[in-house]
Amino acid sequence: MIYNDLIKQVAFIKEIDKLKYIVRKTKLFNSDRNENDAEHSWHLAMMSIVLASHSDKPIDVLKVLKMVLIHDIVEIDAGDTFIYDTTKSHTNTEEELIAAKRIFGLLPASQAEEFIEIWKEFEDGITNEAKFARSMDRLEPLLQNTSNNGGTWAEFNVPYQKVYDKKKVIKNGSSVIWAYAENLINESVEKGILKKE
Amino acid sequence: MIYNDLIKQVAFIKEIDKLKYIVRKTKLFNSDRNENDAEHSWHLAMMSIVLASHSDKPIDVLKVLKMVLIHDIVEIDAGDTFIYDTTKSHTNTEEELIAAKRIFGLLPASQAEEFIEIWKEFEDGITNEAKFARSMDRLEPLLQNTSNNGGTWAEFNVPYQKVYDKKKVIKNGSSVIWAYAENLINESVEKGILKKE
Ligand SMILES: [Ca+2]
Repeated sequence: MIYNDLIKQVAFIKEIDKLKYIVRKTKLFNSDRNENDAEHSWHLAMMSIVLASHSDKPIDVLKVLKMVLIHDIVEIDAGDTFIYDTTKSHTNTEEELIAAKRIFGLLPASQAEEFIEIWKEFEDGITNEAKFARSMDRLEPLLQNTSNNGGTWAEFNVPYQKVYDKKKVIKNGSSVIWAYAENLINESVEKGILKKE
Repeated sequence: MIYNDLIKQVAFIKEIDKLKYIVRKTKLFNSDRNENDAEHSWHLAMMSIVLASHSDKPIDVLKVLKMVLIHDIVEIDAGDTFIYDTTKSHTNTEEELIAAKRIFGLLPASQAEEFIEIWKEFEDGITNEAKFARSMDRLEPLLQNTSNNGGTWAEFNVPYQKVYDKKKVIKNGSSVIWAYAENLINESVEKGILKKE
């Protein structure tokens, strides 16, 4: 039974290797090279560990890590959704739920259920852990874009107000990090790498 | 003070982006594309979450995750050390310690100290968490090489006994996972993708 579980877990471990091929719109820091979802997930995990004490509410850091490590796995089937895409809203789509069931479904049943729940919790963004995890997910591309002369904002002509509205989610996780982020957004306008209209 | 800490933490977060450029010898699953250290670290974190219950000893999973997420960060300065390299032994080298002090030293002092300790604990491999984390670090390339017709074993002519001796470390973390791994090594010999001498 334990050995059977292990066989299923190894199948899952092999399947999620595909996350390394899912390319994001954002580029690495000071770079022209696109980031992939596995690298992005590792970076969010590191940020969560390093910044955990800035959470406004008490958080279970292990839960946050599980969230950020698995949050994009559904994109193996559903593909990356660009946050400033005007034609497709980044909500918990039917396609992503099917992906979650297929991919996490490779695991033993109780583990599959746990992972699907954690992924949904992240998507819903209601618990303290989900709020903090989502603030990490918004902070990384902000840091990347400011290091890349506007990055995806410049590339896809995303105006200040749209950026500001998306990034405001950071405030739900941490007021200190939001103060830092808001300052970075305003500086970007002053530098001319983020346009006001 | 809190804001000053955050400035230092962001500097660290930017610096560790360089892990995405450190290329390993091993290739992705069923692939010709080399894995980088950030992808590798993410994969070990996922494996640790998924396989934690197979640990022979009780483990603090959060501690294991911190270990596997940061274990290769020193390679930003010190470079990747190939496990079957005959000219350079993969021990806690002076170069890696200097790297740890420089990179983790970007963080606020108490956090820098914590990260250096966790990294040393992983390298020493004595605690339950370090044993389990190290077994994950040995299992991933075993799964990759068997998916790639021998992978680095074939590419660098690494014989069975050398592979067996290196992989045996898995046993220190989990006897069930070691049973699986040992079986995989023996199958590789039968398939001719790992040579007996
Ligand atoms: Ca290494």
